[in-house]
Amino acid sequence: MRVFITGIDGYLGWSLAQYLSARGHEVAGADIYFRRQWVEEMGSWSATPIASMETRLQAFHEHTGKTLRFWHGDLREYELVERIFREFQPQAIVHLGECPSAPYSMIDVHHAVFVQTANITTTFNLLFAMHNVCPDAHLVKLGTMGEYGTPNMDIPEGFFEVEFRGRRDRLPFPRQAGSWYHWSKVHGSNNIMFACKLWGIRATDIMQGVVFGTRIEEMGDDERLLTRLDFDQAFGTAINRFCCQSVIGHPLTVYGHGGQTRGFLPLRDSMQCLTLSVENPPVAGEYRVFNQFEETYNILELALKVQKVATELGLPVEVQNLENPRTEMGQHYYHPDRQNLIDLGYQPTHDVEAEMRIMLQDLMRYRERIEERRDILIPDIHWNGPRKKVHLLSSEPERV
Amino acid sequence: MRVFITGIDGYLGWSLAQYLSARGHEVAGADIYFRRQWVEEMGSWSATPIASMETRLQAFHEHTGKTLRFWHGDLREYELVERIFREFQPQAIVHLGECPSAPYSMIDVHHAVFVQTANITTTFNLLFAMHNVCPDAHLVKLGTMGEYGTPNMDIPEGFFEVEFRGRRDRLPFPRQAGSWYHWSKVHGSNNIMFACKLWGIRATDIMQGVVFGTRIEEMGDDERLLTRLDFDQAFGTAINRFCCQSVIGHPLTVYGHGGQTRGFLPLRDSMQCLTLSVENPPVAGEYRVFNQFEETYNILELALKVQKVATELGLPVEVQNLENPRTEMGQHYYHPDRQNLIDLGYQPTHDVEAEMRIMLQDLMRYRERIEERRDILIPDIHWNGPRKKVHLLSSEPERV
Repeated sequence: MRVFITGIDGYLGWSLAQYLSARGHEVAGADIYFRRQWVEEMGSWSATPIASMETRLQAFHEHTGKTLRFWHGDLREYELVERIFREFQPQAIVHLGECPSAPYSMIDVHHAVFVQTANITTTFNLLFAMHNVCPDAHLVKLGTMGEYGTPNMDIPEGFFEVEFRGRRDRLPFPRQAGSWYHWSKVHGSNNIMFACKLWGIRATDIMQGVVFGTRIEEMGDDERLLTRLDFDQAFGTAINRFCCQSVIGHPLTVYGHGGQTRGFLPLRDSMQCLTLSVENPPVAGEYRVFNQFEETYNILELALKVQKVATELGLPVEVQNLENPRTEMGQHYYHPDRQNLIDLGYQPTHDVEAEMRIMLQDLMRYRERIEERRDILIPDIHWNGPRKKVHLLSSEPERV
Repeated sequence: MRVFITGIDGYLGWSLAQYLSARGHEVAGADIYFRRQWVEEMGSWSATPIASMETRLQAFHEHTGKTLRFWHGDLREYELVERIFREFQPQAIVHLGECPSAPYSMIDVHHAVFVQTANITTTFNLLFAMHNVCPDAHLVKLGTMGEYGTPNMDIPEGFFEVEFRGRRDRLPFPRQAGSWYHWSKVHGSNNIMFACKLWGIRATDIMQGVVFGTRIEEMGDDERLLTRLDFDQAFGTAINRFCCQSVIGHPLTVYGHGGQTRGFLPLRDSMQCLTLSVENPPVAGEYRVFNQFEETYNILELALKVQKVATELGLPVEVQNLENPRTEMGQHYYHPDRQNLIDLGYQPTHDVEAEMRIMLQDLMRYRERIEERRDILIPDIHWNGPRKKVHLLSSEPERV
């Protein structure tokens, strides 16, 4: 299948290109290297030393014998998107080309506006170019479990059937996102749902959990094929950040008392699920939603797991409770469904500790790179308040 | 109360400035005259001959003895919004400064992107400036009943309590808008709801029905105080368009068989409701939703009412069924609540025909202006398809 990946230079994008190619798909992609700039803006860099796209493409060619078509450009420009689609004629588009950071969107009004308008514009351009060029193609859009927030009931996959004053209807499940970024994903989901209804576009909207992991098998031993791995407050997600902290002996930074529960999944599971979605398109006009995660965990539990594995590897490390810079509930009900991908054949990893072990072993090689950026490990972007480093909490857990 | 109106040069904005001022409020506003440009882009103009803002402000001063502060500028620039708020220190902000047209947003990708990004950016700038300058002020945001779409159940005011798999929660009522414009309003509502939760902003989100009417009492006989009245396919809403068509003997253009049911309200009711909202702010952190309409009507019923009143005034006119350029249900359940404004004292007009009579009498004076733009009365913007004039339908009503 011809698969076009937006944001192919990113954490998931570069991994997915290799994963799909290894499964016989013809992969192409575009990127404008925003992620590299944003992480630099946060004073950080990737823990893994990532090669330039030119070098990546060269290494990819050496290992696979295949040429990956790449466009360096800004997908906020509609004409570029339409030109790419006319040239490549994609059968599936995996849309990873959005700003993926909640804290980045919470810095100030300019970042909030940037994240929402950039994400909306790029998704619009893809939808219109599909409609105009390849109306039978399938859009696989990366959303986030964070679109749902933490309602006091089970979270279905996108839709639920409810009764209200004696009448029943199947309705979109209400979204209650927790940052401007997460709302940008909701806006995108809404626009895609409408495009499916309006034009008969087929789309899979992936409500993805938090991804962790340094590698997939396809990367082998060639450092040029490695994907990025961020550990700053804006682009470094919980487990990735904890693993980076472990290898330099920095206390694991748990926000609040760590009772926040979320869905998580290893990078290899994310690849498996995205590929299942690509290979099993919905019918024309169908907008389907997949919740995608291996299991739900709370943050403290994950920090303790990383601590355990790190200690076994000779990396003793403390767990530290920090003032939570976010506005979120410390304890809450959390039971999302994730049946749709299981039905398509998703086999969850389940061995999270094994995955953490691989990560720590990978990251130990890049200890100096993380050490050099040690000063950015304490967050300073607050959901409500000016930028300043958060303070340590006493160890009393909060009771809700 | 110090009330700042965004989009004060528009249909509702210029009316509201006069209405609020007559009730003792200190009014200021901003506009960049986009509405005048958009209507020109549609090949049309206001049926009423509208004065320049300079002339309007002069007339306003002559009649009231008051000076209305006005900023000519683009509220997509955050620094301007913050500067205005620092100078004027608003206690309420009535946000009418958005692109309000579904057909305009459906023209092509560039219009879709413009409508959504402009509407989102302006609302963001207001929210951040409130947070930074006047956190106790009250945002009255104009949304639309179209945010809800036409679900197969009653439509509550913003939120509903439902049970799902044995657990109950109060959730935002799911939105199912029917155009890129309507979705831009949903995106705005979602962002405002989150700002209230995040920063303790107080906001009233008005899900307004379709407004009709040429005047409010405050405009008196001075033509310089008249508000605009559009009749083109993008900015002319149903009753306004029908009244303009009547005075030049053009058949009333009903899309499809006119079974679409919507909430409507006269301009004077809109002013009454917006003022009630301004004068009764919610508590800090409260995000409340008001459904605002006088009554629900279907489009054919309204065309027949306009036809009846026009005939009584010596303006015989046909009703014509046109191919519906929109994608919407021809027949559907429609029972929205509108109790919140009634509880605040809203007294609906109920005499729609009397309002139509006033409109027709006003518009007869501007017959030549409408006649000059006769060629734009048949729509050509399709929800799904290239631009071309719609065709006439046979008179058989559709059965659903």
